[in-house]
Amino acid sequence: MNLKDIGEFGFIKRITPNSVNNPKNVMRAIGDDAAVFDIGKNECVVLTTDLLVERVHFIKEALTGYQLGYKSLAANLSDIAAMGASPQHAFVSIGIPKDTSLEYLDEIYRGMKELAKQYNVNILGGDTTSSIVDLIINVAITGVGKKGSLLYRNTAKEGDIIFCTGFLGDSKAGLDFILKSEQPENNNEKRLFEAHCLPRPHIEEGLFLANSGAVHSCIDISDGLSSDLMHIAEESNVGFVLLEDGIPVSEDLLQYCKERGYSAVEYALAGGEDYVLVCTADSKKARKLEKDFYKTFKRTLYSIGTITKGKQYLMKTKDGTLIDVKPKGWDHFA
Amino acid sequence: MNLKDIGEFGFIKRITPNSVNNPKNVMRAIGDDAAVFDIGKNECVVLTTDLLVERVHFIKEALTGYQLGYKSLAANLSDIAAMGASPQHAFVSIGIPKDTSLEYLDEIYRGMKELAKQYNVNILGGDTTSSIVDLIINVAITGVGKKGSLLYRNTAKEGDIIFCTGFLGDSKAGLDFILKSEQPENNNEKRLFEAHCLPRPHIEEGLFLANSGAVHSCIDISDGLSSDLMHIAEESNVGFVLLEDGIPVSEDLLQYCKERGYSAVEYALAGGEDYVLVCTADSKKARKLEKDFYKTFKRTLYSIGTITKGKQYLMKTKDGTLIDVKPKGWDHFA
Repeated sequence: MNLKDIGEFGFIKRITPNSVNNPKNVMRAIGDDAAVFDIGKNECVVLTTDLLVERVHFIKEALTGYQLGYKSLAANLSDIAAMGASPQHAFVSIGIPKDTSLEYLDEIYRGMKELAKQYNVNILGGDTTSSIVDLIINVAITGVGKKGSLLYRNTAKEGDIIFCTGFLGDSKAGLDFILKSEQPENNNEKRLFEAHCLPRPHIEEGLFLANSGAVHSCIDISDGLSSDLMHIAEESNVGFVLLEDGIPVSEDLLQYCKERGYSAVEYALAGGEDYVLVCTADSKKARKLEKDFYKTFKRTLYSIGTITKGKQYLMKTKDGTLIDVKPKGWDHFA
Repeated sequence: MNLKDIGEFGFIKRITPNSVNNPKNVMRAIGDDAAVFDIGKNECVVLTTDLLVERVHFIKEALTGYQLGYKSLAANLSDIAAMGASPQHAFVSIGIPKDTSLEYLDEIYRGMKELAKQYNVNILGGDTTSSIVDLIINVAITGVGKKGSLLYRNTAKEGDIIFCTGFLGDSKAGLDFILKSEQPENNNEKRLFEAHCLPRPHIEEGLFLANSGAVHSCIDISDGLSSDLMHIAEESNVGFVLLEDGIPVSEDLLQYCKERGYSAVEYALAGGEDYVLVCTADSKKARKLEKDFYKTFKRTLYSIGTITKGKQYLMKTKDGTLIDVKPKGWDHFA
């Protein structure tokens, strides 16, 4: 048996046993967007970490240093957002190949610091080392959240309405330009490329959802809607029915897909790194949640389906047929 | 200008400005073994992170998976020890090349979990990704310490006695076997090799020093005594005089060096990864500290020199002459 056979999530299951020796102040261990531990107050600390490796997560020639730095921190901020917490302190480990220019490194930290400033986050430490061939960036970040209102993956309930805080699939279209070594040409292509390179973490949206009293579970879209919603379903022991008609895709993505004969819904389901939030909310409070969201952000909270009993993962297509949804997002070892 | 010109510590100085946007609960930012932040109680949280990259920090063929996992966590525990804090939660990011066997990975986690268990530490999360060529491990770890008794690098005082909690140089000798592709043969060589592969973090010693009320500053020996003591001196704006006669070297190292015509003191000064603690203590309380240390650990707390005024970094050799000490430890970009 090897890694490929068990996949990324099989590997995580494999390493999880016997990892908690002192459960006293642990509120959430391996298995969510971030771990949570009690500090004996009304607030608790959340902590998450993300490793980015050149040629796996990014191609250095395709991203500016600024974009790479910005995105490295954004991915972590998005995990804090998915917990409904406020980010606080970031720790940046960097492994630098000898031929890396100081200018490129300066740009990485400029991108990171600009985003950190926006969210009042500190960079409090890290590690700087060399690397033989690939540039490596690991960001660990802490946040604080209210004990009673943090959002987890494993608490979705049958009957919940599934919501999404923004467009899906744009980042995957943006990635296409990198993978095909093409340049985005018109404005809509440039916006898709920017959605990939400079994603906005939904921190305010996460705090809004956590404070709403209506939301049962939440995750951020880093691997793709089909994969990430599956995490909520599996961890909560429920199923879901997505509504194809409800899945929010941008005009930019529609245009991009139309020109190339691609399916925008496929991009939305399989695309990762959109860093929007998907949550499930009490159906009785859903209407008010949508209204309040609109009032706060002047944008729509998209209703994209419902949580169901049992382990069926379905999508109702535009013509009304139910089809199976398979996790199509990213698995590092598959 | 490039990285080589400014070196690892020049690079850290370069990225430090504008990294703190919200100083409110920050007790220590970039520049110590760990960052420290206030949680509004008598205790505070310390956090440190270490990145290990294959072919830079370790050679996969030379270490068992167990040793690699154990050592990855030990290096982080040692930073927590140097703060005088108790370790709590670890977060492991791993970047795995496709050809890595599941058995080797299982062994990494076995080594890590055995050490975690010894110190009642949890592994609460992390990230699992692929990597193209090199195995990558980043560990971030939190700890807790008492607000008034944490140990920093920048608080050494003129007249302090410099102490060391264990032998220096063994790990460097152990590394020789790896670099020369030799096998340790007799028992003393095997002990040196083990000092390199399975270092014991001085957690209990760090807590003892923090609680003693006698210690002004502390650091762990990860880059080598000359480099690490220089960090204390520079951050505290003081100098030091080491006593060659006082530097503790093991019988194993003496034997090893004698057989090969090497200088054991050179190994002690330049060798990294010993993961013992070096601290500076109030000279009036030094005698009691030594006695109490011996009573607690049944081992000697080695007195190795004194902190002086000004920026002179000296060693008094066995024949009484004063020589300059230069940082000879590891710099990733030099």
